[in-house]
Amino acid sequence: MAKLQQLADLVGGEIKGNAELDIFHVAAIDQAGQGDITFVANRKYLAKLDFCQASAVILAPGIDAPGNNLIICENPYLAFAKILTFLQVPERPVKGIMPGAWVADSAVIDKTATIYPGCVVGERVSIGAGSTIYPGVVIYDDVTIGQDCLLHAQSIVREGCRLGDRVILQPAVVIGSDGFGFAPDGDGYYKIPQVGIVVLEDDVEIGSNSCVDRAALGETRIRRGTKLDNLIQIGHNVEIGEDCILVAQGGIAGSTKIGNHCTFGGQMAIAGHLKVGDNVMIGARGGASGNVAANQVLSGVPLMPHKEWLRATMTVPKLPEMRKDMQKMKKRLEELETLLKEN
Amino acid sequence: MAKLQQLADLVGGEIKGNAELDIFHVAAIDQAGQGDITFVANRKYLAKLDFCQASAVILAPGIDAPGNNLIICENPYLAFAKILTFLQVPERPVKGIMPGAWVADSAVIDKTATIYPGCVVGERVSIGAGSTIYPGVVIYDDVTIGQDCLLHAQSIVREGCRLGDRVILQPAVVIGSDGFGFAPDGDGYYKIPQVGIVVLEDDVEIGSNSCVDRAALGETRIRRGTKLDNLIQIGHNVEIGEDCILVAQGGIAGSTKIGNHCTFGGQMAIAGHLKVGDNVMIGARGGASGNVAANQVLSGVPLMPHKEWLRATMTVPKLPEMRKDMQKMKKRLEELETLLKEN
Amino acid sequence: MAKLQQLADLVGGEIKGNAELDIFHVAAIDQAGQGDITFVANRKYLAKLDFCQASAVILAPGIDAPGNNLIICENPYLAFAKILTFLQVPERPVKGIMPGAWVADSAVIDKTATIYPGCVVGERVSIGAGSTIYPGVVIYDDVTIGQDCLLHAQSIVREGCRLGDRVILQPAVVIGSDGFGFAPDGDGYYKIPQVGIVVLEDDVEIGSNSCVDRAALGETRIRRGTKLDNLIQIGHNVEIGEDCILVAQGGIAGSTKIGNHCTFGGQMAIAGHLKVGDNVMIGARGGASGNVAANQVLSGVPLMPHKEWLRATMTVPKLPEMRKDMQKMKKRLEELETLLKEN
Repeated sequence: MAKLQQLADLVGGEIKGNAELDIFHVAAIDQAGQGDITFVANRKYLAKLDFCQASAVILAPGIDAPGNNLIICENPYLAFAKILTFLQVPERPVKGIMPGAWVADSAVIDKTATIYPGCVVGERVSIGAGSTIYPGVVIYDDVTIGQDCLLHAQSIVREGCRLGDRVILQPAVVIGSDGFGFAPDGDGYYKIPQVGIVVLEDDVEIGSNSCVDRAALGETRIRRGTKLDNLIQIGHNVEIGEDCILVAQGGIAGSTKIGNHCTFGGQMAIAGHLKVGDNVMIGARGGASGNVAANQVLSGVPLMPHKEWLRATMTVPKLPEMRKDMQKMKKRLEELETLLKEN
Repeated sequence: MAKLQQLADLVGGEIKGNAELDIFHVAAIDQAGQGDITFVANRKYLAKLDFCQASAVILAPGIDAPGNNLIICENPYLAFAKILTFLQVPERPVKGIMPGAWVADSAVIDKTATIYPGCVVGERVSIGAGSTIYPGVVIYDDVTIGQDCLLHAQSIVREGCRLGDRVILQPAVVIGSDGFGFAPDGDGYYKIPQVGIVVLEDDVEIGSNSCVDRAALGETRIRRGTKLDNLIQIGHNVEIGEDCILVAQGGIAGSTKIGNHCTFGGQMAIAGHLKVGDNVMIGARGGASGNVAANQVLSGVPLMPHKEWLRATMTVPKLPEMRKDMQKMKKRLEELETLLKEN
Repeated sequence: MAKLQQLADLVGGEIKGNAELDIFHVAAIDQAGQGDITFVANRKYLAKLDFCQASAVILAPGIDAPGNNLIICENPYLAFAKILTFLQVPERPVKGIMPGAWVADSAVIDKTATIYPGCVVGERVSIGAGSTIYPGVVIYDDVTIGQDCLLHAQSIVREGCRLGDRVILQPAVVIGSDGFGFAPDGDGYYKIPQVGIVVLEDDVEIGSNSCVDRAALGETRIRRGTKLDNLIQIGHNVEIGEDCILVAQGGIAGSTKIGNHCTFGGQMAIAGHLKVGDNVMIGARGGASGNVAANQVLSGVPLMPHKEWLRATMTVPKLPEMRKDMQKMKKRLEELETLLKEN
């Protein structure tokens, strides 16, 4: 619970209305009731305020909503996120190494870290202050984990990998599985050992059941602030820049380098050994088979400007008709040609 | 083992032949031997009966198969499933909380439930009668699990989520991971806490390594009887209706609402904030980027009637030829135009 | 560490230069320093040798690189893999059944096998000599695991499945989850028990978070030497031949049979109940909806020869323009027709 004033201070906003209101929860505009604060980030939802029961509303400057208690601030969506964090995300308790966790003697665990039952922590691992390791997590030998990290249940970090500070692994994430490398040997294949590592820099988050493969030699690296959704595949020796967003079920093949501030839609794919520049957006299901220059919004296979792709896909259902039309035109053309020859 | 009569009674069928036969196993028509029962659900496989060694056969009414011991019933495929369950699915033993399971003191576990070693069960969890929790399952605080549920090894249910009765989680399923939500904050992103839950209603089954994200606010809900295959991604605040079937590797983005009795093929995708009506079938790899009205069979990107899609894709390999043809026609047209102008 | 001569002997190569050199590590050509060996498998990287600091280089016969210590051998890439294995892959320690592992009394574990804490091994399981079972692995009842297998953390092998020798499961692999089978029953579905098994033959490797479903009846089988990447879905009763390569995120639906020496790109899909011949290559995102004859290189949906597919996809961005062109041509054609009729 917080006073409205306290929340306004938290987000650097100004109050119109009762600064002494008690706020308990954040709620969506059509579900908010007494004691709730809600937000309008998009003007098209403003009309909903007429029927909204929230005790307070976060709004952008220049919008009026008479009769409501308001926090006015530049970025209501960000303010909503910050207030939600403040009001409803409990601090993680510090429990140390709990009974039922198996931690190697040579591991160095900060005393403000928490390791739940069912975890297995290998030799020479270090885990920083305030990090929480949920049940069933397996950390192989020689892993380094920074401060205030959150490793959810059954995430796995294999040997030698390094996580910065405030890294979040959702449940069942796999960091440092072997890259997919085999040398042809007669009819079969000889496994190429994958002796590199994975580095996740500060503030990286990886979604459930996503895999980041260790490098064959050297490292696979995901830079500061980049967020991966669920069920994503990152191949060996890939590098992803800072503050990228990768939506679920996409894949990036080995040795590809991605710039900063890229945003990739769901089920997207990028082939191996490519370079993608900064600020590239690739739509859902887009597929890159060549290098991609910076500052573009692309979709489709092959990648093309998103607007062209929209037009191209809209044409697909018309292909059979186009084909029939062409055959008819060809016939008419032949008739004309015959007619003209006869003349 | 069962007498043929017993099996006929089980499925409401009639016997032609020896009701006292001992039946031990169910087998496919081309592998069945003595003591086995098989089934023919599709007339095109009837001819195989001539070479079949099964002791008995399940058939639909109106089909004759002289010389065989038969169970005649309306739905042989369903009867096969019921008889297979009866003969070959052992009852799950009741073992209580086994040594090596870590269960919080405040958890309420029915005494007919079974919790295997390596499980970790959080505070205030409740688990209903007859439920089986296989090794390595992690159940966070405040989760409710109904009766006769089956949670396979290393499935994960995060805080506050609710499972109805007879819910099945295949191995390594993740229920209640954080939805993928971030508010832009300068060049980077601020994590939007995901404080909602997931509700899986009665008789829902989720396939291996599939993920169902918790809601940002409120709930993600999968309704009674819906079945998800492996490696599927369900975004936050999604709702899926009753008795839907989702084949492997598909994804549904956040806040989308799906009706009842829908069937979605493998690797399919539905964008966020959409509505899909009842009885919609979407073929493998289909992609919905807009709302979908009820009672349709669709495929492709953009979604189109399945038959149109078949024709459209068949045209794709002919595109280069079509393009060349068009250029030739253009030339011929120009020649005709020139010729006519000259005249 | 090894003498250069020792490494040459290992790969059946010949030395040019100092056979007594001490080699410590394998490194990529642009990162190698003193004490490192590198390799050139592709002539286009030869020029990099001028700036390379490696102590030795693996080269194919017929290439000269004066001033370098060389191992000359037929297949430098394979030699690199073998030398990397020799120098940098430590032997796995034999630790027996470690404290914190739960192993059923009836399980038969070779005394040279290692079972880490957090593992749960069911009744009547057998595990062969030299196999290593990393933390958190769950092996259900009646599973057979051969010699020198490597099961990474939290991989799961369900009841009755059989693994040959030298099988590798990357972390969080699921072997033997239920196939996706339901019989329509009124408006809903009745679960078809999946009572078959999975067989992984010798030298099979399965990537992180991949799923191989157990058969409904009978078996799902992956034959000797086949390698699967991460996040792959293999349906029930599928058979995959020897020495196949499946890149990440692909899926093969139930009962399909794949030949030997096939190579499938990422995010590929093959529908159910099909046959694919030997030596078939399917490009990334390719989709098979019918049987595929042996010895082909295919891509696209529908599958077509890879080169045709390249041309077809290159046409896609031009579709809107083609459509407009056609409309113009139609108009011009009409004008000509009118003109001729008038004459």
